[in-house]
Amino acid sequence: MSDIYQESVALHRQSGGKLAVACKVPLGNKRDLSLAYTPGVAEVCRVIAEDKNEAKALTLKGNTVAVVSDGSAILGLGNLGAEAAIPVMEGKCALFKNFAGVDAFPICLDTQDTEEIIRTVKLLAPVFGGINLEDIAAPRCFEIEERLKAELDIPVMHDDQHGTATVVLAGLINALKLSGKDKESAQLIINGAGAAGDAIAKLLLIYGFKNIICIDRTGAIYEGRADLNPAKTKLAALTNPEKKAGNLEDVIKGADIFIGVSAPGVLTGEMVKSMNTDPIVFALANPTPEIMPEEAKVAGAYVVATGRSDYPNQINNVLAFPGIFRGALDNKVRDISDEMLVRAAEKLAELVPEPTRDMILPDPFNPEVAKTVASAIY
Amino acid sequence: MSDIYQESVALHRQSGGKLAVACKVPLGNKRDLSLAYTPGVAEVCRVIAEDKNEAKALTLKGNTVAVVSDGSAILGLGNLGAEAAIPVMEGKCALFKNFAGVDAFPICLDTQDTEEIIRTVKLLAPVFGGINLEDIAAPRCFEIEERLKAELDIPVMHDDQHGTATVVLAGLINALKLSGKDKESAQLIINGAGAAGDAIAKLLLIYGFKNIICIDRTGAIYEGRADLNPAKTKLAALTNPEKKAGNLEDVIKGADIFIGVSAPGVLTGEMVKSMNTDPIVFALANPTPEIMPEEAKVAGAYVVATGRSDYPNQINNVLAFPGIFRGALDNKVRDISDEMLVRAAEKLAELVPEPTRDMILPDPFNPEVAKTVASAIY
Repeated sequence: MSDIYQESVALHRQSGGKLAVACKVPLGNKRDLSLAYTPGVAEVCRVIAEDKNEAKALTLKGNTVAVVSDGSAILGLGNLGAEAAIPVMEGKCALFKNFAGVDAFPICLDTQDTEEIIRTVKLLAPVFGGINLEDIAAPRCFEIEERLKAELDIPVMHDDQHGTATVVLAGLINALKLSGKDKESAQLIINGAGAAGDAIAKLLLIYGFKNIICIDRTGAIYEGRADLNPAKTKLAALTNPEKKAGNLEDVIKGADIFIGVSAPGVLTGEMVKSMNTDPIVFALANPTPEIMPEEAKVAGAYVVATGRSDYPNQINNVLAFPGIFRGALDNKVRDISDEMLVRAAEKLAELVPEPTRDMILPDPFNPEVAKTVASAIY
Repeated sequence: MSDIYQESVALHRQSGGKLAVACKVPLGNKRDLSLAYTPGVAEVCRVIAEDKNEAKALTLKGNTVAVVSDGSAILGLGNLGAEAAIPVMEGKCALFKNFAGVDAFPICLDTQDTEEIIRTVKLLAPVFGGINLEDIAAPRCFEIEERLKAELDIPVMHDDQHGTATVVLAGLINALKLSGKDKESAQLIINGAGAAGDAIAKLLLIYGFKNIICIDRTGAIYEGRADLNPAKTKLAALTNPEKKAGNLEDVIKGADIFIGVSAPGVLTGEMVKSMNTDPIVFALANPTPEIMPEEAKVAGAYVVATGRSDYPNQINNVLAFPGIFRGALDNKVRDISDEMLVRAAEKLAELVPEPTRDMILPDPFNPEVAKTVASAIY
């Protein structure tokens, strides 16, 4: 890993970051200038002043997404601030372009105040056709997303929540098929109740799972637990129908599916052994998962997925977010709904014609991925 | 003109605006992804978290400028708001790239409140290596620029002020040479005391002009005039040493130089005739100048410049701003000072080896222009 790290720093230093701006029109002579800039551009301004909607057709707005972060939850590294967030946001923008032809620009804000983030994104919105929120800590991220979705007329999505949830669901759909389990009877544990855990739980409920228990640092979340914040109170009302209490070791017994969005090494082989037959284990802590795939398999896991590219079944957001925004821009979608994301997950799952225990998701470099996901966003 | 207008709208519609985002690193396989994005990028984040300055070397920040407007003074069109400003800002970004290799991104803010603009630009600053303010109405633009220069650690310049002033000075240096006039004795009238007029007056004073009279809608600005706002009070203290009162027609009599940054047609042939011998006329209102060049020449003007590309001697900001920011980024300049701009103007003037009455400035497509200007910004 340390080689990858040093090589990555060297690559970034050599290229001076990853993004450049490119000009799509010729600027080689005076006539070009008079069309792209003054005096011709004045008419373009007048057309938009009369009808703001024309900005989508006549400017970069129609194909451009802001990737917005406050640097408060960068990858698994924590709260490193705005500058340190740039390499991740720039990388995300590069993926948007490479995988779906979406022009994306990194916006790393020098504030971690919820109201100020909301206000700033609203002030910036005229130039953008969509807002991808990224690496913003929970529970702040919930209010920011909810408010921006309500107050802006362009699509807004927090990828750590909904991009992740979409890919997890796609993987689960094929894992269920392989294991012969079904969504209505399967018992499912989500370890980690931050942004990703919350969104995964909600999307899986909409898809039709009935029995989900979410676990945070204190233990299983159930209706009536004394210490819940508003987001977790909502989650408690939707999940854990039997109001089970206890820690991971207690509640995982007999469960069919484990989804970890938590911390390295918290799932032991013993716990996997205590699960129902042919358990499904998605250990998504990155870079070090809740349990290493080898160990999970020895303990009896039937399908194992992680966030890593060096093991089979990588739960990689790049399978979802480029296509989701491609579809939202192309289909003039104002709100990206959970129903659209369920549809996207189903289509993603279908892209693997014959799933196996080591291939529950399509290859991210399959050029059909973004198109297929985009076609679900309507 | 109407052809240019319609053709420009068609071009913008066909290309969907003028800017795209490009990726500078390969993303063709898993290994590329692991270097440009996770897991490798985590180390780049950690390096920047330890030393924020590394963002300039490791991210787009080192070569990227924000072109920021509130849409309150778009070209000569007035206050059309944020969306209608996008085509101009996008065009400016295209020129930055084309003429100086600077990556620039348009930021069009949905507010015209001075404090909110200042705050928002500060919150956005982490991603950018410089801030180019554009088409923000006076007097708001003065405070915004002053405060951002003081409160940010990256270069900030309002191009309508200082870019324009730099090119005007460059043109004047050669016009003075041709006409045999000199800066210490020349009487100079600046008609229009908004953003551009204010900055031109101040830069020319620093260069060594002694006798400048600025005129606003009420007439000549002089110390003690009752109705002056704070910006004009400062200007009055620096200019009009004889405290002349009166309108343009009154104070232009005997003057050597007229610089108009005002309105179409306000300078008559009679007024030009009332000037000193071999007068210099820079009629910069755009697209229709204060006087058409043909008429100014008939009335005796020795050198005439306008903002138009279809006449000789175009005072075109593209001669200055790309090179100014190129130099500021390359030379790690924190503040773009008036001294740097005077030096840039002198070097721009020198780029015309043998100035003539119809060629006081270099061709904007001369590839030496941006390099030469950049070399003055240190």
